[in-house]
Amino acid sequence: MTREELILQIKSKRSFLCVGLDTDINKIPKHLLDLEDPIFEFNKQIINATKDLCVAYKPNIAFYESMGVSGWNSFKKTLDYIPENVFTIADAKRGDIGNTSKMYAKTFFENLNVDAVTVAPYMGSDSVTPFLEFADKWVILLALTSNIGSLDFQNTKNEDGKQLFERVLETSQTWGTDKNMMYVVGANRSEQLSEVREIIPTHFLLVPGVGAQGGSLEEVAKYGMNDECGLLVNSSRGIIYASTEIDFAEKARQEAQKLQFKMDILLSEKGI
Amino acid sequence: MTREELILQIKSKRSFLCVGLDTDINKIPKHLLDLEDPIFEFNKQIINATKDLCVAYKPNIAFYESMGVSGWNSFKKTLDYIPENVFTIADAKRGDIGNTSKMYAKTFFENLNVDAVTVAPYMGSDSVTPFLEFADKWVILLALTSNIGSLDFQNTKNEDGKQLFERVLETSQTWGTDKNMMYVVGANRSEQLSEVREIIPTHFLLVPGVGAQGGSLEEVAKYGMNDECGLLVNSSRGIIYASTEIDFAEKARQEAQKLQFKMDILLSEKGI
Repeated sequence: MTREELILQIKSKRSFLCVGLDTDINKIPKHLLDLEDPIFEFNKQIINATKDLCVAYKPNIAFYESMGVSGWNSFKKTLDYIPENVFTIADAKRGDIGNTSKMYAKTFFENLNVDAVTVAPYMGSDSVTPFLEFADKWVILLALTSNIGSLDFQNTKNEDGKQLFERVLETSQTWGTDKNMMYVVGANRSEQLSEVREIIPTHFLLVPGVGAQGGSLEEVAKYGMNDECGLLVNSSRGIIYASTEIDFAEKARQEAQKLQFKMDILLSEKGI
Repeated sequence: MTREELILQIKSKRSFLCVGLDTDINKIPKHLLDLEDPIFEFNKQIINATKDLCVAYKPNIAFYESMGVSGWNSFKKTLDYIPENVFTIADAKRGDIGNTSKMYAKTFFENLNVDAVTVAPYMGSDSVTPFLEFADKWVILLALTSNIGSLDFQNTKNEDGKQLFERVLETSQTWGTDKNMMYVVGANRSEQLSEVREIIPTHFLLVPGVGAQGGSLEEVAKYGMNDECGLLVNSSRGIIYASTEIDFAEKARQEAQKLQFKMDILLSEKGI
C-alpha cells in the first residue's frame, strides 16, 4: 500500500487505529477451542467487528510461531482474510546480515504479501535495506519502544550528545524515505515525541502502548500528529481481549469504536 | 546443554566448530530437488558428514521460514535429527516486549527444544530475560556482528567513552551468567576481541564470519580464546556449499575437517 492510499484510508475512516492481533490460544474464548482453527476463527470475528474502524492490523508473529505449523496456517489465513484496503503489519522485529534479511523480506513481502514488517536496527544498514527494495512495501524500524528495557540502550547518549534512538532516526534517513519507512515510538514515550518529530517531521509512526500498556492517545496526537496524520496507533490486548466470553467480538468493536471516536475528534482538530 | 557438557564436547572432539545450516533451496544440489523434502535431505547428509567434527549446528530461521509451512517441517525434522550431544542454535535474532519474548522462548526452548537462541539487544532487559528462565538453555546476544551495518550503531561511543557493544556486554551481565549467556562477535572484528574479553573473560562467544565473510580463525583464537576455549566459531556457506554437485557432503566434510584440524592445534597450544 502506498503512503497516499494509507492517508486516504485514514481520512475516509476517520481513524488511525491499528488493531494488534496478538492472538493467544490461552486467552481466547473457550467456546472457540472446539473449532478446527480457533486462532483464525477468533481473528476472523475480530476483523469482521473492527475492519470499518481501523486502518491497519498488526499480527505479532510470536503468537503464531508458538503454535508451530498450524500457527503459520492461521497466520496466512488471517492475512488472506484482511480486506485489501487495510494495511497489514507483520510484527516480527527481524534484522540479520544482508543475505538473510533479504530472505526475510521475500518471505513477508512476496510469500505472505504483508504491507510492512517491523525491523530491529542494531545490525545497521544492510540488515534493513533489503526490506526497502519492494515496491509499496514498508519497513517499520524500532526507534523508542514501549517496554521498560527500552531504557537500557535507546536513551544512552552518544559522544555528540545524541541519544541512540535519535541516531537511529538520523542514520536511517539515508536508507529510505517517508514513503517506505515508518518508526516505532511507544505511546508512553510521548514526552519524547517532539524530539522524534524534529528529526522526522513527515514519517509515519507506529505507536504501541495505548491501552494495556498505559499510554495516552491525546498525548500521542498532541506531540506526534503531523499534517497528514502520520500516526498509526496500535491497541492489542485492550481491544481483542475486552471480553473472553461469547460476546468478545462485540466488546472488541466497542473498544475500537471508543478509540476511533477520539481519533475522529483529534483528526478534525488538526484540520484533517 | 550445560556449559560443562559443551566444554566436554569441545575437548573430546578437539573442535569448537559450529556448522551453519543456512539451507537455501536455490543453492543445494539439483539432484536433491526431486525428493520429498530436499531441505531436510540436504541437512541430513551434511549432519552425517560433519557431526563428529563440530560441536554445534546453527540453522538460520530465515531460510526455513521462507519456505512456509514445509520449511518449518524441515526445520523441526533437522533439529530432531541432530545428535543429542551436539549443541543446537536457532539463529533467529528475536527480541520483543516481555510477554512476546516469553512466547518466542517457549517456542524455541519448549516446542523445538533447541539449546540456544540468538537475541537482539536493542529492546533491553525484558526482551532478553524471558529467554533466561529455562534450565540449561542459552541466550546468544548480539554484541559485535560481522556485517558492514554493524558499524552504524554498535561502535558509537557513549558519553562515558564506551561503545554501544561494550554497554550491551556490561549491562547484560546483570541479566544472566556465563552459564546461560553467550555473545555474537564477528570474526572480522578480531581486533576488538581483546576489548570484549576484558569485559567478559569467561563467557562463550559465537563467532560468525570465518570463511565466506573473510575472518581469520587464528586471529579469533589469539584474541578470543580463554582457558576453557570459550569459542564457538561458525562457518556456513564455506562448508555446506563447498560443492553443489553430488559430492556436496563429502566436500563439506573436507572443509569442516580443515577447520577442525586447525582448531585441534589451537586448543593444544592453549593447553586445552
